[in-house]
Amino acid sequence: MNILIVVCNPHENSFNHAIAEKVRAIYEREGNNVYYHDLYKEKFNPLLYQDEIDSRTTEGIDNTIQDACRELLDSDLIVMIHPNWWGMPPAMMKGWIDRVFRRGVAYRFDPFGRSVGLLEGKKGIVFNTSNTPEEVEMRLYGDPLGNLWEKCIFEMCGIKDVKRRNFFGVVRSSEDEREAWLNIVNDMLIEEEEI
Amino acid sequence: MNILIVVCNPHENSFNHAIAEKVRAIYEREGNNVYYHDLYKEKFNPLLYQDEIDSRTTEGIDNTIQDACRELLDSDLIVMIHPNWWGMPPAMMKGWIDRVFRRGVAYRFDPFGRSVGLLEGKKGIVFNTSNTPEEVEMRLYGDPLGNLWEKCIFEMCGIKDVKRRNFFGVVRSSEDEREAWLNIVNDMLIEEEEI
Repeated sequence: MNILIVVCNPHENSFNHAIAEKVRAIYEREGNNVYYHDLYKEKFNPLLYQDEIDSRTTEGIDNTIQDACRELLDSDLIVMIHPNWWGMPPAMMKGWIDRVFRRGVAYRFDPFGRSVGLLEGKKGIVFNTSNTPEEVEMRLYGDPLGNLWEKCIFEMCGIKDVKRRNFFGVVRSSEDEREAWLNIVNDMLIEEEEI
Repeated sequence: MNILIVVCNPHENSFNHAIAEKVRAIYEREGNNVYYHDLYKEKFNPLLYQDEIDSRTTEGIDNTIQDACRELLDSDLIVMIHPNWWGMPPAMMKGWIDRVFRRGVAYRFDPFGRSVGLLEGKKGIVFNTSNTPEEVEMRLYGDPLGNLWEKCIFEMCGIKDVKRRNFFGVVRSSEDEREAWLNIVNDMLIEEEEI
């Protein structure tokens, strides 16, 4: 199986990174092929310009984006890991979505102008972290990242099998809590492999 | 009155720019003080790094962000204009939010860890554009940008008076339609001034 892991957090020792390393270790142990991207470490450029939007082919564009598009198409499972910043991913990961989920790669338009997903059959897993307690988050903001990832991004591209888990109150969490959360990550992935 | 206008679209002749210019013209005509930012034109850097998050003061950080924070605090009305990309703003504007709506500027935490908005009394107006027809957009995705702007961003910072309008099907619109939409923009702002 090919697995694409993308993690985005400016703090190199973040809990997001702990999750990403856990996911990587589990899949590599099983002998899968893992594409691993730590966007801040790679200094990913998130800015989508008009010429890149207009480019009819993916061959004509920036090499980093070409490679990421190839890995996206090549992967059976896409794992996205990031904190909740204003109900959205950080700008750097937002730009990864803007640039890599390209028309012609992740979706196309049919002759009636309706979008058609091009990533059917793939699976998505999303891990998010936030500092707000769960009860407050849900009452005030709902769960914007759930709708964004499940509907607006993955389903639009044809990916219907999406699992997601948000870990709340990370800033005030104990080492034991974080260890328990990493076990949840482990169990979600093991369950995934057994299906 | 001080007005902050922020527009983000990689196409310099976009309908977003037409809206932004309309808003600017209306407010400047009335003799207001307008801060106008075309993020792509200014090559705004949207990346928030850990040292900027950790900085206890705003004085120690990048000048562009210091100035933007000052303008944000100084403005009575904040007008944000951008296309709907994956139910979110483009990465460049997402990064403007990440960096300018700083802790200590736009919100703070009370001793119990609860967030308190620092922009109370200000008003917000958001104009969005999308290419999907309204019926399809609402059925498939809901209105993620409504929740993001109204709840997750503005209300979190204490801004409760928010108006928003999304213009649908922009790519297939006629010049007459776009002219009519600019009149809607005009009427919304005039109404705003009369209250």
